[in-house]
Amino acid sequence: MSLDYPDALTELIRQLARLPGVGQRSAERLALALLDWEEDRLRTLAEHIGALRQRIHPCVVCGNLADGDRCRVCADPRRDQGLLCVVEHSRQIPAIEKGGKFQGLYHVLGGRLAPLEQVEAEDLNLASLYARLTGDTVREVILATSPDIEGEATASYLAEELRGRFAGLVTRIALGVPVGSDLSYADSTTLGHAISSR
Amino acid sequence: MSLDYPDALTELIRQLARLPGVGQRSAERLALALLDWEEDRLRTLAEHIGALRQRIHPCVVCGNLADGDRCRVCADPRRDQGLLCVVEHSRQIPAIEKGGKFQGLYHVLGGRLAPLEQVEAEDLNLASLYARLTGDTVREVILATSPDIEGEATASYLAEELRGRFAGLVTRIALGVPVGSDLSYADSTTLGHAISSR
Repeated sequence: MSLDYPDALTELIRQLARLPGVGQRSAERLALALLDWEEDRLRTLAEHIGALRQRIHPCVVCGNLADGDRCRVCADPRRDQGLLCVVEHSRQIPAIEKGGKFQGLYHVLGGRLAPLEQVEAEDLNLASLYARLTGDTVREVILATSPDIEGEATASYLAEELRGRFAGLVTRIALGVPVGSDLSYADSTTLGHAISSR
Repeated sequence: MSLDYPDALTELIRQLARLPGVGQRSAERLALALLDWEEDRLRTLAEHIGALRQRIHPCVVCGNLADGDRCRVCADPRRDQGLLCVVEHSRQIPAIEKGGKFQGLYHVLGGRLAPLEQVEAEDLNLASLYARLTGDTVREVILATSPDIEGEATASYLAEELRGRFAGLVTRIALGVPVGSDLSYADSTTLGHAISSR
């Protein structure tokens, strides 16, 4: 019971327990582990946490996480300026980068259409997307929103909106069975997609 | 891959990954979650972490975690001053307190004898223990070191040392089968102890 800890420790435990996947017991374990850290290590961690929002902000071009004006992808001249991959959140970019296949640029919507949660088109970074598509630098927009109901709705909405504004190609990431998976465990909707998109 | 994150975020992830039970993936998840926190919440957490070692220090009497001079147990006048429970680490005290059976005071050794790790008797808080046992306030010392090789060795060493210095009772916590457990899963050493100490 955290009741037995000094107040300052109880308070730290309470705050750590707000992190996703960190319960009361894990928060206690983390706080006690921090107590064993050297003074200056604690200060360094504290300083990094406290300054996090000043140091990391959205890239002015694409909305990806950046510590300068532009993110690493936008700042890299070797990336293909003609290819734009639209994602919901910046946290999805590392997953795509890890694949190593995509050499273009990104655009982060900052969410997806979710009428039930009052997320409308005005809440997404669409104006900056449309602005990037004027001129003829971009030749293809890949809609890489999640393959669930809201992600699909957002992709459909975007495909519709882009039809009138963008002369290039608009594509959707392929839906199908995951590489390395056993077909017997694939869900039937995914399998249906995989077969019809063969 | 954390390579894709801005440097400040990569550094925070690296630091969080030093916590016990936090791997690279969990550290990434924690760092990204922190990025969604409000500015002042982040500052509060940072402030609590940075000041942890100033705020929490060993109780001057028993060595338990305290934010004042004395810990909650030592500061509580209702605790039995005649009963002293000797533990290895302050983190073991909440477990005993949770049981609600023990109403005496504690003494934290700050470790246990471990010759292989160069932990000798001089490295433990023994002088302050012997000092507490002068006079006749304390009538019983309970040796609550862990029931493993080093904990047992420490308990034996203490029992021996106290024989010459302390006129009261020296007891060892009971070794036996855990309450609520199924006997068929008890290990044979524990069962042997449980039977011989019946």
